[in-house]
Amino acid sequence: MQIESGNLLRTIDSPEDLKKVPKEKLFQVCDELRQYIIDVVSVHGGHFAASLGVVELSVALHYVYNTPYDQLVWDVGHQAYGHKILTGRRDNFSTNRKYGGLSGFPKRSESEYDTFGVGHSSTSISAALGMAIASKYKGEADRKSVAVIGDGSMTAGMAFEAMNHAGVADADVLIILNDNCMSIDPNVGALKEYLTDIATSQTYNKLRDDVWKMLGKLPVGKRFTRDMASKLEHSVKGMVSKSSNLFEALNLRYFGPIDGHNITKLVDTLQDLRNIPGPKILHIVTVKGKGYALAEKDQTKWHAPGLFDKITGEIYKKTFDLPQPPKYQDVFGHTMIELAEQNKAIFGVTPAMPSGCSLKFMMDKMPDRAIDVGICEQHAVTVSAGMATQGLRVFCNIYSSFMQRAFDQAVHDVAIQKLPVVFCLDRAGLVGEDGPTHHGAYDIPYFRCIPNMIISAPMNEQELRNLMYTSQLESNKMPFVIRYPRGEGVMADWRKPFEEIKIGTGRKLRDGKDIAILSFGHPGNFAAAAIRDLRVDGITPAHYDMRFAKPLDEALMHEALSRYSRIVTVEDGTVVGGFGTAVLEFMQQHGYKADVRILGIPDRIVEHGTLKELHRECGYDAQSIADAIRETVKEPTPATVPAF
Amino acid sequence: MQIESGNLLRTIDSPEDLKKVPKEKLFQVCDELRQYIIDVVSVHGGHFAASLGVVELSVALHYVYNTPYDQLVWDVGHQAYGHKILTGRRDNFSTNRKYGGLSGFPKRSESEYDTFGVGHSSTSISAALGMAIASKYKGEADRKSVAVIGDGSMTAGMAFEAMNHAGVADADVLIILNDNCMSIDPNVGALKEYLTDIATSQTYNKLRDDVWKMLGKLPVGKRFTRDMASKLEHSVKGMVSKSSNLFEALNLRYFGPIDGHNITKLVDTLQDLRNIPGPKILHIVTVKGKGYALAEKDQTKWHAPGLFDKITGEIYKKTFDLPQPPKYQDVFGHTMIELAEQNKAIFGVTPAMPSGCSLKFMMDKMPDRAIDVGICEQHAVTVSAGMATQGLRVFCNIYSSFMQRAFDQAVHDVAIQKLPVVFCLDRAGLVGEDGPTHHGAYDIPYFRCIPNMIISAPMNEQELRNLMYTSQLESNKMPFVIRYPRGEGVMADWRKPFEEIKIGTGRKLRDGKDIAILSFGHPGNFAAAAIRDLRVDGITPAHYDMRFAKPLDEALMHEALSRYSRIVTVEDGTVVGGFGTAVLEFMQQHGYKADVRILGIPDRIVEHGTLKELHRECGYDAQSIADAIRETVKEPTPATVPAF
Repeated sequence: MQIESGNLLRTIDSPEDLKKVPKEKLFQVCDELRQYIIDVVSVHGGHFAASLGVVELSVALHYVYNTPYDQLVWDVGHQAYGHKILTGRRDNFSTNRKYGGLSGFPKRSESEYDTFGVGHSSTSISAALGMAIASKYKGEADRKSVAVIGDGSMTAGMAFEAMNHAGVADADVLIILNDNCMSIDPNVGALKEYLTDIATSQTYNKLRDDVWKMLGKLPVGKRFTRDMASKLEHSVKGMVSKSSNLFEALNLRYFGPIDGHNITKLVDTLQDLRNIPGPKILHIVTVKGKGYALAEKDQTKWHAPGLFDKITGEIYKKTFDLPQPPKYQDVFGHTMIELAEQNKAIFGVTPAMPSGCSLKFMMDKMPDRAIDVGICEQHAVTVSAGMATQGLRVFCNIYSSFMQRAFDQAVHDVAIQKLPVVFCLDRAGLVGEDGPTHHGAYDIPYFRCIPNMIISAPMNEQELRNLMYTSQLESNKMPFVIRYPRGEGVMADWRKPFEEIKIGTGRKLRDGKDIAILSFGHPGNFAAAAIRDLRVDGITPAHYDMRFAKPLDEALMHEALSRYSRIVTVEDGTVVGGFGTAVLEFMQQHGYKADVRILGIPDRIVEHGTLKELHRECGYDAQSIADAIRETVKEPTPATVPAF
Repeated sequence: MQIESGNLLRTIDSPEDLKKVPKEKLFQVCDELRQYIIDVVSVHGGHFAASLGVVELSVALHYVYNTPYDQLVWDVGHQAYGHKILTGRRDNFSTNRKYGGLSGFPKRSESEYDTFGVGHSSTSISAALGMAIASKYKGEADRKSVAVIGDGSMTAGMAFEAMNHAGVADADVLIILNDNCMSIDPNVGALKEYLTDIATSQTYNKLRDDVWKMLGKLPVGKRFTRDMASKLEHSVKGMVSKSSNLFEALNLRYFGPIDGHNITKLVDTLQDLRNIPGPKILHIVTVKGKGYALAEKDQTKWHAPGLFDKITGEIYKKTFDLPQPPKYQDVFGHTMIELAEQNKAIFGVTPAMPSGCSLKFMMDKMPDRAIDVGICEQHAVTVSAGMATQGLRVFCNIYSSFMQRAFDQAVHDVAIQKLPVVFCLDRAGLVGEDGPTHHGAYDIPYFRCIPNMIISAPMNEQELRNLMYTSQLESNKMPFVIRYPRGEGVMADWRKPFEEIKIGTGRKLRDGKDIAILSFGHPGNFAAAAIRDLRVDGITPAHYDMRFAKPLDEALMHEALSRYSRIVTVEDGTVVGGFGTAVLEFMQQHGYKADVRILGIPDRIVEHGTLKELHRECGYDAQSIADAIRETVKEPTPATVPAF
């Protein structure tokens, strides 16, 4: 079904077309754009509330600025649907986030209007500033750079670093602070309180206005001379203009706050700002989910709701006759509470993903022991390290691809000091529709090279629980990584009693002939399915669920390598430097010469699609594993070379 | 020669002893401590100016706070010499930074007074806040946490992230902002301007005082009623207290600025602050190098001057009869200028290391094309990426271990987008006396797992120049890493004409028999020396200088692996996932079965010492390579297994 856009939006194939719309009709463009987003996302899925919140801003920016010559950088980018629809991608917008279709985020290779690829937060000011510096150097005085960044993204230090530079760089950059008090969950931290303060007319701005007014009306008389009045006014103004707010303290001219849903006001303001050179910030206040009542009311739920009935607001959920396996996320969330009830030393920390990682369960139940610190992975890791020095057992839950932000902190503050922080790497491996910026493809190699790191991955819910249990035992003195994927596990009946797993031990699932599969983490289930499939061909591989990429289970490795001359490794991570490579290193150290085939994420950028499509494409779903093994056993048997 | 401390300092073996000194004698402790630091560092080397700047603060903190129960976290930590001397390490302080001796930074395993290991900047607030949260949770109401952080470290976003959390965490943490306007080089950025503003009594503070005074004296009369006066006062106070400065905007109570060299004032202030609960910041103004005139005058030079005559201020330099090889750093610096003169698109970016990496040469000569962005590796990388989208060729020079801070930005903003940013990783490999926090041990694996990354390392100055030349050619479309070590190269006559190096090609230095050495980067010189040494034993290994860890030179690899059944790899990086591992992966892909020995940094934390000592300890100096080869050739020859 082709979804039709409104009559006016239908005529807009580029910002050029938009610029032909008279200003008084822009509200209609906004209405139609909002409706089109609702229509498409309800049927095709995707991020929702964020784009609704910036409909007016998207229209105003392309109306006022000369895009793509002027350069627009959207922070995170899940709010850029309006931008995409206005810039020539209206009619194929229904392919959004689908395999081979449009990306859910701005992407340079997709459109010249997408000036900078995004996905992770807080990069926009740096990128836009870089563009502005380049424009200045090239003498393009008329060329503008604009970064649109939410108040959630502002809490990541990178945004501060960029402002610290922008304030002295003498480059023409406009930062638009889209203040909606939200990350995916409600935004937290001192900055958010401050922004709320200055955006609330009752407090800061009213005070400022009051003072200005009173200063203007000071009744000069005998005892209060004109000179005194002038001095007072001068002093107050000097003080206020020098540091009246946080952004001006950083030498950014501050404008606002203004209503981000008033399209006329936005257009007028941007037209004014376009002519003001230098670094500046416009503070706009918006409502995430604006225009869709349910989304306005429960913004976290409607961040990316899945498919829904746009009229009733019913979010479609599959129903099943039998109990289904839970999400790994929920297993983590529930298990945190169970463990924390047993062990007083346990704390939970999440950088802005309480709902996504399900730490929210614990935050609701034990609010003094589970903290959302905002979008700030670096601080999240080091504050966990600080707590760990005091004997607390902190579970720091960070998505694998966001953990890249805190790599140094994991090395410098945790691993070098051997602090027993537990890193739960959620969404490790391919993540599906969010695509390349979000795939958790690299954590095995980037942590495996760090001394003192324990790196584990569960094959199922029970192993996740037992690894979590093991990591918090007194006997564990080391940083402990547990990586698990996004989405459902494999066990409907998962809440089994805890059992310690000896660190660095895997388990043999079955003996076999000629060939052994060594799997790491959840793809072990693909391997098991492949083995069932291979039985009909009379091929019977052994299967080891290794559980630890570091330290490897040496006994199991020696067993597998002395009994099988062909090894297939499977992991949900890059084939460069990962688990399969760890097997090669072990073989090198011990003189084994087996033929090894390494299945995992290939050494190229993997685009978006469903998990099923991507596992297939990357060659480690059940069928691909079976095919690889069929191919391998066809080759002549290599001589087994014993260990020296 | 045992260096004697002054009479009073000699009696202080712990903060307990210090607390017995009457307050009016603390200035003498300060004098003796300062003198002792000068005496020891001039003879034994180390960081210098930073510790002189915080002599009074170190004394005051241990005088007022109940350390180690109260917890003191020093940011970066190169300023903690006074702290170390006051906490039981006076008499072995001359072993500072020596192999087996004291660490040049606070280190948990060294002393209970060193609450958190540091080295990289801007971790202190997070760590201290984590400790404070733990204390609160454990009900230790009397326990205090203090972070001491410089204005340079404040520019890194991580500090901002921590303050954003501290402002709402309701934990008892004191942040001491040690404002000396310096990183190693002069501090830069909007924050620094702002701090200078508020620390200068002529401007902000005077204004504030003026306003307060005037408000107190408002002459109430007929036309200016008491009610109006009260309203005005209320409004101004409300406005100012809400946002009178950047820190108060983040809900940190702000105190100061005060003179950080006035020991009495410091002690009094800290005694007051100790009793004020909650998150707060004390702004102290100090002079880096305080008390040593030359250091006060040229703070960058005296950051870590090496050995010197404390009386004349002469910094000892070795003198040579013949021209000596330059530092790699200077080769980088001079080559930048040469290349930039030929290619208008070239820019240089450094996060706060213009002197350390020698980008300063270009900053002096081409100030509009070489930028110090402050301590902010994340922003440094993404602003470079932003510039690269506009066709600029940016050389972003970051020390290998600091690059860990911008790992996500290198992946997300550069590699995924295939932007041809050049990462010059200075101080890659072991760095010597700075120790574990600064060793550039991990960059080969953490970059090798990322798609689109070119990873190179020069064996000498000429290769460094040619790699830099190659990386900026139009023909290179990819992110390009050039890693090189700290210190001197090997060619006195290094300034040769540029030659393009085909990406992914190494060079054969010599043919050999039985065994081949594949080296990556400067340890190729150790290998060459080993080969000379082995000649006397009749052992003649082949030698390949591979130059690229990614992509590998496939032709050369096939040649080496088909001709030699024994391979030794050498690199100045970890043996887990590094260059040697890349060789294993190549062999696995192509079915080679050679015996491989991988020499490099072992998979454990390597402590500090001279480079010579550490290369030896880690087993890849010339002698160790020769020994490894002697041992290898003694083993029975393995059968050569051809590629399938």
